[in-house]
Amino acid sequence: MTSTAPVRHDPVAAVLAARQATDPDQPIWITLLDPAEVADAAARVNPAAPLAGTAVAVKDNLDLVGHPTTAGCPALADRPATTSATAVRRLVDAGAVVVGKTNLDQFATGLVGTRSPYGACHSVADAAHVSGGSSSGSALAVATGLVPLALGTDTAGSGRVPAAFNGIVGVKPTRGLVSTAGVLPACASLDCVTTFTRTVAEARPALAALTWADPDDPWSRPLPARLPAGIAARMRVVAVPDAPLDLDPAHEAAWQAALTRLRHVAAHVVTVDVTPFLATARLLYDGPWLAARWAAFGHLLEPDGPHLDPTVRAIVRRGRDVTGPDVFAGLDRLAALRRDSEPIWSDVDALLLPVTPGHPTLADVAADPIGVNARLGRFTNFVNLLDLCAVAVPAGTRPDGLPFGVQFIAPAFADAPLLDLAATWCGEPATNAGLAEDSGSIAVAVAGAHLTGLPLNPQLVELGGRLAYRARTAPGYRLYRLPGPGLPRPGLLHTGDGPAGGIAVEVWRLPHQAVGALLATVPAPLGLGSVELDDGSRVAGFLTEEHGVRDAVDVTAAGGWRAALDATG
Amino acid sequence: MTSTAPVRHDPVAAVLAARQATDPDQPIWITLLDPAEVADAAARVNPAAPLAGTAVAVKDNLDLVGHPTTAGCPALADRPATTSATAVRRLVDAGAVVVGKTNLDQFATGLVGTRSPYGACHSVADAAHVSGGSSSGSALAVATGLVPLALGTDTAGSGRVPAAFNGIVGVKPTRGLVSTAGVLPACASLDCVTTFTRTVAEARPALAALTWADPDDPWSRPLPARLPAGIAARMRVVAVPDAPLDLDPAHEAAWQAALTRLRHVAAHVVTVDVTPFLATARLLYDGPWLAARWAAFGHLLEPDGPHLDPTVRAIVRRGRDVTGPDVFAGLDRLAALRRDSEPIWSDVDALLLPVTPGHPTLADVAADPIGVNARLGRFTNFVNLLDLCAVAVPAGTRPDGLPFGVQFIAPAFADAPLLDLAATWCGEPATNAGLAEDSGSIAVAVAGAHLTGLPLNPQLVELGGRLAYRARTAPGYRLYRLPGPGLPRPGLLHTGDGPAGGIAVEVWRLPHQAVGALLATVPAPLGLGSVELDDGSRVAGFLTEEHGVRDAVDVTAAGGWRAALDATG
Repeated sequence: MTSTAPVRHDPVAAVLAARQATDPDQPIWITLLDPAEVADAAARVNPAAPLAGTAVAVKDNLDLVGHPTTAGCPALADRPATTSATAVRRLVDAGAVVVGKTNLDQFATGLVGTRSPYGACHSVADAAHVSGGSSSGSALAVATGLVPLALGTDTAGSGRVPAAFNGIVGVKPTRGLVSTAGVLPACASLDCVTTFTRTVAEARPALAALTWADPDDPWSRPLPARLPAGIAARMRVVAVPDAPLDLDPAHEAAWQAALTRLRHVAAHVVTVDVTPFLATARLLYDGPWLAARWAAFGHLLEPDGPHLDPTVRAIVRRGRDVTGPDVFAGLDRLAALRRDSEPIWSDVDALLLPVTPGHPTLADVAADPIGVNARLGRFTNFVNLLDLCAVAVPAGTRPDGLPFGVQFIAPAFADAPLLDLAATWCGEPATNAGLAEDSGSIAVAVAGAHLTGLPLNPQLVELGGRLAYRARTAPGYRLYRLPGPGLPRPGLLHTGDGPAGGIAVEVWRLPHQAVGALLATVPAPLGLGSVELDDGSRVAGFLTEEHGVRDAVDVTAAGGWRAALDATG
Repeated sequence: MTSTAPVRHDPVAAVLAARQATDPDQPIWITLLDPAEVADAAARVNPAAPLAGTAVAVKDNLDLVGHPTTAGCPALADRPATTSATAVRRLVDAGAVVVGKTNLDQFATGLVGTRSPYGACHSVADAAHVSGGSSSGSALAVATGLVPLALGTDTAGSGRVPAAFNGIVGVKPTRGLVSTAGVLPACASLDCVTTFTRTVAEARPALAALTWADPDDPWSRPLPARLPAGIAARMRVVAVPDAPLDLDPAHEAAWQAALTRLRHVAAHVVTVDVTPFLATARLLYDGPWLAARWAAFGHLLEPDGPHLDPTVRAIVRRGRDVTGPDVFAGLDRLAALRRDSEPIWSDVDALLLPVTPGHPTLADVAADPIGVNARLGRFTNFVNLLDLCAVAVPAGTRPDGLPFGVQFIAPAFADAPLLDLAATWCGEPATNAGLAEDSGSIAVAVAGAHLTGLPLNPQLVELGGRLAYRARTAPGYRLYRLPGPGLPRPGLLHTGDGPAGGIAVEVWRLPHQAVGALLATVPAPLGLGSVELDDGSRVAGFLTEEHGVRDAVDVTAAGGWRAALDATG
């Protein structure tokens, strides 16, 4: 479905093509700019700018100066914005040229693309199936080849579902990295601005331009100068659910193919219990967060009229009756679910899930507008609530020929390594050179108390170390719990008869001068030696002298020290 | 008021003394343990434990196994807790011995210490003036010398107000560092467990034992392995408000004395606009957060009866009527205030404020129970909402002889350097040796784009650098905005005629090997030389060659590069 060739449409040509393509059954645009205005903007672009001349479509809940922001509500069509949203302005400053404002589920409330007085969209692949939403028009503007780049938003999944249903890439950055100033809010604390492109490579310069701590956005957050603890610069361990997901049959077939493909993309595939994620997803529409939508745009839902989508209005009016104590109880419940889900990230770089459990038809949605939509959010709703980032990528087609999309999900601020993982999935080059081997540092495998989150890990951080990647040893290593007082310490020993799957390790890059300091803290029978990893490479690492394991407990069966600790308390 | 001598009461002696002191006008205890039970616990203590044999009083909203948790509500007095709160358990594991449960403003809702069916407390210094609350009994147990350590809680200021009103130290750690599992919540997302001691030194081992990421507390957060960006290891720049604070006259006199004293404690005292802090404070009781209290314990407020404090009941019942949309609007308002307040922390290590604007009498509170209490929280309410940490310390006495307390406030996770600042205030030694000079690193003063938050700062972080302290140059330096394309770059030059106050710099510690890498990125006319600081010390630092400033703009008057950028956009 995807093209990896960079495509850069001339913005004027894009507008002219979009005008020509106007089709009442595929209402991509709410406002298409005048070709003269677009030509004028294109003429002013600095040709050296990173996005010079890139045609961009903007979801119609982001402000564009001089044009109305309808958010899919025709009652707002007579008020031109006086300034552009920060995200739009930053793309324009980087050389992009806006060609129009795109259709959406009204007030960005929906995952279907049918909840709009401007008309329902359908998948680029099939007129009977929904386009997905709420960023329907933006996804279609890219998927139909009109523009190489479009902006969407994503609160519950609106930046990922239409990417999946139209075979393109949808990047939902960590909350706060891209300003939402000038976006009509759905749930301000969760809303994210997203990109649609056909390749990861095309998303990169757009995200680089968009990422900015905006003093005008109270929910804005700066990108940290270094990756937070526990986020590896190179993602190698990808988790998948440990139980069936109750997908539609055609979806299930495509998902099984994706799981097979994952084994060629990720160095290690592990299974995890995704129950806390799915429970969190239910909070978003069953829980008190609907009150945020009522707070944001409830005043626009009265009085009723043909300018309002009846489903959106019915759903959001439920938010009016949520009580304040309900909200605080929901925040407590969310905190508990976050705590339940967090341990997954100590052993895993990213989680792979389908974007949706199925791909409904427009008729399915018409028959059950709320239920079908709610089911679509099962794998997307939790991502912003749990402060995660995600990239939706194409994963081939289903047996019926419809596009199928999966998403890689990771903790906040893991955006850069996650984009690299997504690029690898798409057969594109990874670009993160931040942890390339250099003459001043050395890779050291740790297998015990120095692992992320365990008691001695702060030593590595203090010494200027950083987590390069998670790995496993080559076969032939065994792991022991060493006797003695103090912290439980493991011993890794090459016995030749260890399990084929190896022992879980983290590979840290340490400044050369830190190695001496580290070695000074290591008590006998431990030492630093050379460890072979599962890919045949060798790095420095903690090993045990053979005599040291004589009275030790063999915990090899746990597969790693963290698991061994969990097993014994 | 304070003693710096470590005092460690025998727990049994403490119980016996507390029994003897029972005074209906000073109801410190709700539950005093049986001396035999205390003796038994004391006998089981490992004498090598860090808090071995330390008598501790526990606020009666924390669970202690085998005893009821009343939270000041006699209706709860018949249900012994089946486990201890995590915080209590950690102190006991560290060798402390609990001697009793202390009185409080009911459900920890109040700052006065009078809202309890168990009786109203008064200041240790004067029977007519309130003790402060809600942790009234815990503060008094320490202030009266019965125990060296007590646990309180602090949502709006309950761990600081009674410290101030009784001349002791109250530490309110960063939210989440100390588990609230087993605490009857007031507002779970904001509640903190706190310590009362007579010295900072006595608080340190208790806080070390208490700090722990608790899987049983969904709001728990781990202490990061290194100080977050922008937090200096040694605090030298302290801010005070740039406008009068409308204090009671006796309070104002003591505050002026504290400001004078600050000039001997902090290397630099600067003034800041505290408007966003005070506006945030008003949110806590005027805004939707009351709904959290209703969610937490509203079910205990019906039906009414003599077991309920009428003021607490009246206030919290207002939370029942807060709507869900109100809460989300409040969260958005809080995000905006947080954003408004954040820039203060780029140039300042800590903020000094009085703990309260006055010290009311019990009669004042009786005459206006809600209004007097609300005013007390003006300088404390915002701290947890804005995710800050704080230490309340004694600051002498007012002209009328009542104790006066001030608080040092800093961003989340600045607890360790903030404790050192508080210790210095109290005339105690600082202990943070984390950034002591060592042979492998060098101190480098930066004055421009490498400052925290500015574009080149990530270079320093990537190189393994960390912010050691904020400082100013010695007199005689001037600052220029250098001509040229790209990032605005400053030049620091020793001209001999610069301002007496010097130029603002940050001193970073960099690994030796990083200096070469840094130097490689520095374009002419900049270079690394030696900079004299205001305390006469010399460190390496960025300087400009004299010829380089010929066409440059002199921005010395701004006093520093960040201020110069703010002035010119």
